[in-house]
Amino acid sequence: MAANLTGSPAPWEVPATATPHRRFRVELPGAFPLERGARLSGIEVAGESWGEPAPREDPANVVLICPALSADAHAAGRGGNRDSAVDGFGAEGIAAGLGWWDPMIGAGKAFDTDRFFVVCLSLLGGCGGTTGPTSPNPATGRAFGPDFPVITVGDIARVARAALRRLGIRRLAAVAGGSLGGMQALEWAAAFPDAVDAVVGVATTPGLGAQGIGWNWVARRAIASDPDWRDGRYAEAGALPEAGLRIARMVGHLTYLSAEGMAAKFGRRLQEREDFAGDLHAADFAVESYLRHQADKFARRFDANAYLVLSHALTRFDLARRHGGGDLGAAVRRFRCRTLLLSFTSDWLYPSADSRRLAEALRSEGKPVRSEDISTSYGHDSFLLEAARMTPVIRSFLLGPEAAIR
Amino acid sequence: MAANLTGSPAPWEVPATATPHRRFRVELPGAFPLERGARLSGIEVAGESWGEPAPREDPANVVLICPALSADAHAAGRGGNRDSAVDGFGAEGIAAGLGWWDPMIGAGKAFDTDRFFVVCLSLLGGCGGTTGPTSPNPATGRAFGPDFPVITVGDIARVARAALRRLGIRRLAAVAGGSLGGMQALEWAAAFPDAVDAVVGVATTPGLGAQGIGWNWVARRAIASDPDWRDGRYAEAGALPEAGLRIARMVGHLTYLSAEGMAAKFGRRLQEREDFAGDLHAADFAVESYLRHQADKFARRFDANAYLVLSHALTRFDLARRHGGGDLGAAVRRFRCRTLLLSFTSDWLYPSADSRRLAEALRSEGKPVRSEDISTSYGHDSFLLEAARMTPVIRSFLLGPEAAIR
Repeated sequence: MAANLTGSPAPWEVPATATPHRRFRVELPGAFPLERGARLSGIEVAGESWGEPAPREDPANVVLICPALSADAHAAGRGGNRDSAVDGFGAEGIAAGLGWWDPMIGAGKAFDTDRFFVVCLSLLGGCGGTTGPTSPNPATGRAFGPDFPVITVGDIARVARAALRRLGIRRLAAVAGGSLGGMQALEWAAAFPDAVDAVVGVATTPGLGAQGIGWNWVARRAIASDPDWRDGRYAEAGALPEAGLRIARMVGHLTYLSAEGMAAKFGRRLQEREDFAGDLHAADFAVESYLRHQADKFARRFDANAYLVLSHALTRFDLARRHGGGDLGAAVRRFRCRTLLLSFTSDWLYPSADSRRLAEALRSEGKPVRSEDISTSYGHDSFLLEAARMTPVIRSFLLGPEAAIR
Repeated sequence: MAANLTGSPAPWEVPATATPHRRFRVELPGAFPLERGARLSGIEVAGESWGEPAPREDPANVVLICPALSADAHAAGRGGNRDSAVDGFGAEGIAAGLGWWDPMIGAGKAFDTDRFFVVCLSLLGGCGGTTGPTSPNPATGRAFGPDFPVITVGDIARVARAALRRLGIRRLAAVAGGSLGGMQALEWAAAFPDAVDAVVGVATTPGLGAQGIGWNWVARRAIASDPDWRDGRYAEAGALPEAGLRIARMVGHLTYLSAEGMAAKFGRRLQEREDFAGDLHAADFAVESYLRHQADKFARRFDANAYLVLSHALTRFDLARRHGGGDLGAAVRRFRCRTLLLSFTSDWLYPSADSRRLAEALRSEGKPVRSEDISTSYGHDSFLLEAARMTPVIRSFLLGPEAAIR
C-alpha cells in the first residue's frame, strides 16, 4: 500500500528505538463539510506511527488507534520535549513523556508493530496538533476560539479517514480506542464498514448514559461559568479559565476512578500531617491533595474550548440514533468487521453493561463479537492501566486463529 | 419534663394541623467553646417541633431529628412563607413548602407524634436560622462571612445539646438523621451516651470514604474559585458566587442520584426537542436541563460560606478517629443506646458497606444494633424519598417490643 509518510512535512523520528516511530502532519485540501452544516477549510491532522506499512494493501496491516478526550496522537514511545503524556498517574522518571498507550503499542505488545503498522491521529476539535479551537481561523487569521464549529464523533472519524486516505491508507486491519476513542472505533465500523476489518472497543459505549451525560455537563458548565473563559475569547483577552478547567478535570478524574480503587489508594489518609489544619481550604486529605495536583497539571496543558467541543461531541454520540434510527440492532447491522469489546468491572462511567448491551446487539445480528469484562478496581482508567490484562485478549483477537476468519 | 418552648421568643404555630407544630429560637448564653479552639458568642438556634412534650422525663419521649447539609429545622409540616423546603424534587402544589422529612414525622408516621415529641434544630454553621456565616459577628456587627470559625460535627451536636438543655430536655428517646444528619446521631451516641436511648442512622457513615471526600472537595473548590466568592466577603461586596454554588450543587446532586435511577428517569431523552441544538451550551438532554434547574434553585437559596463550613465538617467527621483513637470498635464501645442503621442499595455516596461496617463493629462490641439495606434505585436521595420503606422498620424499632429493651 506504500503509505506515503515521507511525503508529509517534517517527519519526526525518535532515534534509538527498535520500532520506527514517526511523527507527521497531513493537510486536507479544500473545505471539509461537517455534519452540523459548517465547512472547515485547511484542516491539518497531526499523527504518529509505529512500525512499517506493508508493501501491499491486502491483507490490511494498518491499525488505527483513536485517542480519548484528553489524549493525542502521542500514543506510544518517547514524546520528545513534551510534558508527560502518560497523564494523570504521576508519571515520573522513565515513564515521563511516554505515550498514553505505550504499554499497548510495540513489538510483541497488544498492537504488535512486528505485524501491524500502527497509526494514531490527534482529534479534530482537540488541542493535540490537529485543527481545533486553538488553530488559526482562515476567516480571521486568529485562533478559532469559540467560533470553532460544533463537531460530532462522526466528523472526527471522517477527518481521520480523509487523512489516512491522503497517506494512501484505505483499509484498516483494526481500529481501536478506549472511551471516546472506542466511540470513534464504533463509528468507523458503522460509517465505513468496507474500510474496517476489526474493531477493538475498550471501556466504551454506543451512547453514554444519563449519569455520564450529567458529569460532562457539569464539567462544561464549570469551564463556561469561569469569568476568565470570556465567552471563549480568553486567548485574545490574555486570560485563561484555569479555575474552570481545574474543576472540570477534577470532576472528570473522579469519574475515571472507582470508589474501591480510591479507598485502597487514599482512604481517609491525611497528606503529610497528623491532624486537620483547621482551615476550610486546606487539602488535609491525600485525595484532596491528589485532585488539586491533577487539576493544576491539566489546567496548564489543555485548551478550554477544545474541552468543551470534545465533551459535547462525546455526550451526543449515539450509535443507535445515528446509524439505526434509534435501534442499536439496526445500527450494528451495518458492521462488516469482527468486534472485540473490553470493559472493566469497576468502570462506572462507561459501565460493563453498556459493552454487554452492544455485544448482545451484535450477536443478535449475527456479527462476530467477543467481549471480556475484566475484573479490576481501577475504574474507567483501567483502559490506560490494565495493559497486561488487555494484551493477551487483544493479541489473540488480532493475531490468533480467529483473526483469519473474515 | 415540661420542655420550655413557651419561654422561647415568638413561637410559631401552624393552624389547622392535627399535630401541634411550633417554630422556636433558643439563645445560648456566654461564649461557646468550639473544638478547634475558637469561641462563639451569642449563638442562636432555630428549631421546630411536632407533638407535645411528655409531662415526665422518664421514659424520654423526645426524638431529635438532625438535618443534612442543605436542610434545616423545617423537617415537617407547612413552611409558612418559605420557598419549597422539599428541595430538589420539583415539589409543587400541595408538596411545596412541606418539610424535608414530612412523610416521616407526624401521627402514625415513622417518628410518631402521638408517642414522641419530635424536635429538629437547624445546623450550626448553616443558613437555616441557627448561627452561621450569615449571622452577625459580635466583634464587627457585620455578618461573619469567611470569619465564621471552622466547626466539627461534634460542635454541631454540642450546640444542639446545649439548646435542648435550655428547653429542659436532657435525654432523648432517639436521635435520628440521614447523611450528615446521621453523622450527628452517631456523634450524640458516642459523645453523650447517657443522653441517648436510641439512634436511627439513615444513609450515613462513621467516616466518608475517599470518593465522597473527593466530591465534597470539588464542590468546595467550585465555590471558592468563583471570583464572586471574593474570599468569602461576597455579601459586603454586593456579589454572590452563584456560578460556584451552581457547580457545587450539580456535583452534589449527581452524587445523590444513582446511575440506574438516572437511566430510568432521564436516559438519553432530549428536553423538548427532536434533535441536538448544535450549540455547545444548550441543555439538549433532559438530564442537563434538570441539573441546570436544580442548580439555579439552590444558588438562590443557599449561602456559599455555609456550604463550605458544612461540607468541610462532614468530610472531617470520623467516629473512629474522634472517639476510638482510630479504632471503630473502641469508638462504638461508648454507645449505651440501641442503634438502627438504614442504608440503600444504590447509594454510592454513603454506601451500604459503610453501614454494614458500623453494624459489625457495634455487634462485635455487644451493642444492640439492627440494620436494613433497602433495595432501591434512588441512590443517596433515598433517605428523603423512601419514607414508605423506612417507616415500618423505624416504627418497629422505636415502638415495637424490642423498644422496651434497654
